Amino acid sequence: MVSRGGINFSAILKIMGVLLIIEGLFMLSSLSFSAWYDPDSLSNLRFFDPMHDFLPLLVSGIGISLLGFLLWVSNKKLDQNSIGKQEGYIIVSMAWVIISLFGAIPFMLSGVTQSYTNAFFETISGFTTTGATIFSDIEALPKGILFWRSMTHWIGGMGIIVLSLAILPVLGIGGMQLFVAEVPGVTPDKLHPRITQTAKRLWFIYVLLTLAETGLLALGGMNLFDALCHAFGTLATGGFSTKNDSIAGFSPYIQYVIVIFMFLAGVSFTLHYFALKRMFKKVTGNEELRHFISIILFSTLLIGLSLFFIQKLPAETAFRDALFQVVSIVTTTGYITSDYLVWPYFIWMLIFLLMFTGGCAGSTGGGIKIVRILLLFKNSFLELKRIIHPQALLPVRLNGRSISQSVILNVLAFFLIYIIIFAFGSLIMTMLGLEFESAVGSVAASLGNIGPGLGIVGPVENYSSIPATGKWILAFFMLLGRLELFTVLILFSPSFWKR
Amino acid sequence: MVSRGGINFSAILKIMGVLLIIEGLFMLSSLSFSAWYDPDSLSNLRFFDPMHDFLPLLVSGIGISLLGFLLWVSNKKLDQNSIGKQEGYIIVSMAWVIISLFGAIPFMLSGVTQSYTNAFFETISGFTTTGATIFSDIEALPKGILFWRSMTHWIGGMGIIVLSLAILPVLGIGGMQLFVAEVPGVTPDKLHPRITQTAKRLWFIYVLLTLAETGLLALGGMNLFDALCHAFGTLATGGFSTKNDSIAGFSPYIQYVIVIFMFLAGVSFTLHYFALKRMFKKVTGNEELRHFISIILFSTLLIGLSLFFIQKLPAETAFRDALFQVVSIVTTTGYITSDYLVWPYFIWMLIFLLMFTGGCAGSTGGGIKIVRILLLFKNSFLELKRIIHPQALLPVRLNGRSISQSVILNVLAFFLIYIIIFAFGSLIMTMLGLEFESAVGSVAASLGNIGPGLGIVGPVENYSSIPATGKWILAFFMLLGRLELFTVLILFSPSFWKR
Repeated sequence: MVSRGGINFSAILKIMGVLLIIEGLFMLSSLSFSAWYDPDSLSNLRFFDPMHDFLPLLVSGIGISLLGFLLWVSNKKLDQNSIGKQEGYIIVSMAWVIISLFGAIPFMLSGVTQSYTNAFFETISGFTTTGATIFSDIEALPKGILFWRSMTHWIGGMGIIVLSLAILPVLGIGGMQLFVAEVPGVTPDKLHPRITQTAKRLWFIYVLLTLAETGLLALGGMNLFDALCHAFGTLATGGFSTKNDSIAGFSPYIQYVIVIFMFLAGVSFTLHYFALKRMFKKVTGNEELRHFISIILFSTLLIGLSLFFIQKLPAETAFRDALFQVVSIVTTTGYITSDYLVWPYFIWMLIFLLMFTGGCAGSTGGGIKIVRILLLFKNSFLELKRIIHPQALLPVRLNGRSISQSVILNVLAFFLIYIIIFAFGSLIMTMLGLEFESAVGSVAASLGNIGPGLGIVGPVENYSSIPATGKWILAFFMLLGRLELFTVLILFSPSFWKR
Repeated sequence: MVSRGGINFSAILKIMGVLLIIEGLFMLSSLSFSAWYDPDSLSNLRFFDPMHDFLPLLVSGIGISLLGFLLWVSNKKLDQNSIGKQEGYIIVSMAWVIISLFGAIPFMLSGVTQSYTNAFFETISGFTTTGATIFSDIEALPKGILFWRSMTHWIGGMGIIVLSLAILPVLGIGGMQLFVAEVPGVTPDKLHPRITQTAKRLWFIYVLLTLAETGLLALGGMNLFDALCHAFGTLATGGFSTKNDSIAGFSPYIQYVIVIFMFLAGVSFTLHYFALKRMFKKVTGNEELRHFISIILFSTLLIGLSLFFIQKLPAETAFRDALFQVVSIVTTTGYITSDYLVWPYFIWMLIFLLMFTGGCAGSTGGGIKIVRILLLFKNSFLELKRIIHPQALLPVRLNGRSISQSVILNVLAFFLIYIIIFAFGSLIMTMLGLEFESAVGSVAASLGNIGPGLGIVGPVENYSSIPATGKWILAFFMLLGRLELFTVLILFSPSFWKR
């Protein structure tokens, strides 16, 4: 840590200002759909009327942008040394909290919920690309609010790509510097120009994929509104839908399109960049990607066969239902075309286990991440060899390179903390009155940024019945999971604040 | 690994011979209770009569000893170099399997079960000190069989102390060389004399504690048979009782006596040795012991208060029920005085989590072990510090000494493999038709050598309803858990068998 005069709170507030300006502008973009679907919107300018959301979105959007502008101008100019590692950690954790605290305002002003707890839960669930909802009747919500809800996903997904591929590696979090060492432009010196350059490339891919999916969904008969909202939910691996039955009511074509884009969103965006540059060797040689595909194929086969033989579904339906649910859970999206809790026990145990693997590092997916699981497995097998040959040096290898012990230690610590939070989180949820399955399901689904869990938070249920305290705790778990644990936990370490 | 002429199978068979002779003799000792409780035993010499067990025990005991004798004489004399590390690993894993395969015979010959799967399950559950039973009506079993059943615990407990404190450290398994570095007499050279010396000291303590508990239980009104059986089950942290309702029907005095000895059995026997030698500083300064006690006190307080305030139990009953169940689960004994599944959800979630901590290393308890959990927590906290100060060397410290990275890696690999086996084991159990809670409960209870789990294998249930395949799988998990995972898994590693 560079020794300077203390933490630069002025710089932190200035950055928060920028984020709020951007958030406000995005919010204002929801006005178009509000006006389009509610032609009388301009004659129905009122708050707390769940049928009309124009005024709430307008006032929130302008207000938030203005507040951001005030923060920006009232804090002193940023220079080369304004933002060090310490400020970086604080900004990253604060960013998700602040935009969620303010992003919840339209839900309150429009009156679609009277509880700020619910509004905040829905918003942070959106920004963390979790997709857990507290609304029972989604189709009753006004379109502007629905669009803003889906947009929180898209913004969150955009943020997480830059975070995991451009910012965290520089901050040295979660072994990320390793996974993305080959990202064009990332080196731990000169922070700003590199981050900007990398971010631009990644966002280009993100926007490109979003447009492609929107187009393909529209070709399948979706209107622009639904197509955009679902493209947002897919590319961010979020899972908010505009329909009460998620993706179940859409055509097989639409379901396959969403499967493809969920898969693409679960792959490291670095690989998309390589693919665009026609560097296919780098893509096909990637161990994480190969294992990601293997996990999907194996699970789909196992579930598909059981749906075909035990549940007697037609072959194509069995395959599609299996594939969709597997890809949705493993990428941590959380869209649903069938209630997996009515399937045989082993399927939902398998789906429960898949909630922990998560997508690839550098994707918009949450969870532990395939590359970590892969390194952990490799290290465990090597540990057996190490016992047999105590003198031999046996480093873990990934993509042909050997991985240092400190990275392995970091990955192992990550896994351990993940499991500890899961265990204690489940205990806390049972203290709040949830039974076993709902407790473990809600924590796994929140920490992994998935959305649907087990029991009372199963795929055809929602989070409205969780007690308020539980909602705040789950919201915290979403944040922890989304920011790779350490980014948030480090703020609770006394030595972080010591000079 | 010393390069010699290949694995010395002759030496392995010779050692198996010794074990079988010992097993046969122990089995014959059950005859005394068989004769005492069934005075007509000598006129009822028959097989497959669940009321009479004299002939089955006699024939099995003599047969097994004879077979062992044959193995002993037919294999060539052991010398200094007969048993290396490689043979050591094979002997340790094989020992538990072989004595279970043969120890199951009396159950078959007496006809108390017609299924060899059940007989084997019961026996390996005994030897691994798990205490999971397939019998619904234990009180209906003849006394000789019941005594043999409890004796499998005692033999298993005796074996595991020597294994964990004298043999595994020499074989370099599970970081054990670290936890027990201060054990009198253990050094990784000169194998045999040291092991014998250490074993004798530990067994002395083990026998002393067994006699002490038997005496105290008899003082509380138990007859000699029940007192011995329960002392065996307690000191081995096993859990087989001679009563259908486990310890629930006994007086508070008896319950407190058992609590005290379960606790003592869950403490490293090295510390008992130090205590006997009046080296109390070593005992009070032990970090693992301090955390073991803290976990027990904290959990007892939490559960006791909830039993008092929510379940409205009288204060003493609430305290005793909480204390008994906590100590029983955390030491992996599995005796029960109250059905924890009827308590509030958070209590059985807490009890479920305690199934993973286990006792102290070097005790007869199973599970992950407190010292590993402690090192894992310490390492995770340090990992946060390492991110803040990437250049600083921050080793994990235990009992004032710093622990090498390779030991931490080993402990982390142990934890990971434990969780992976738990996860995949649960998946397999759901494939066999168990629902979620029973699946996770049965695997956690088997792998942790506890006994009672959740759902259909809960504290007032038994394992008879598990399908046969499931029983063999759970038996394998008991073995894995008992032998610190690596000892068994290493045999599945191709490089173990390569020269």
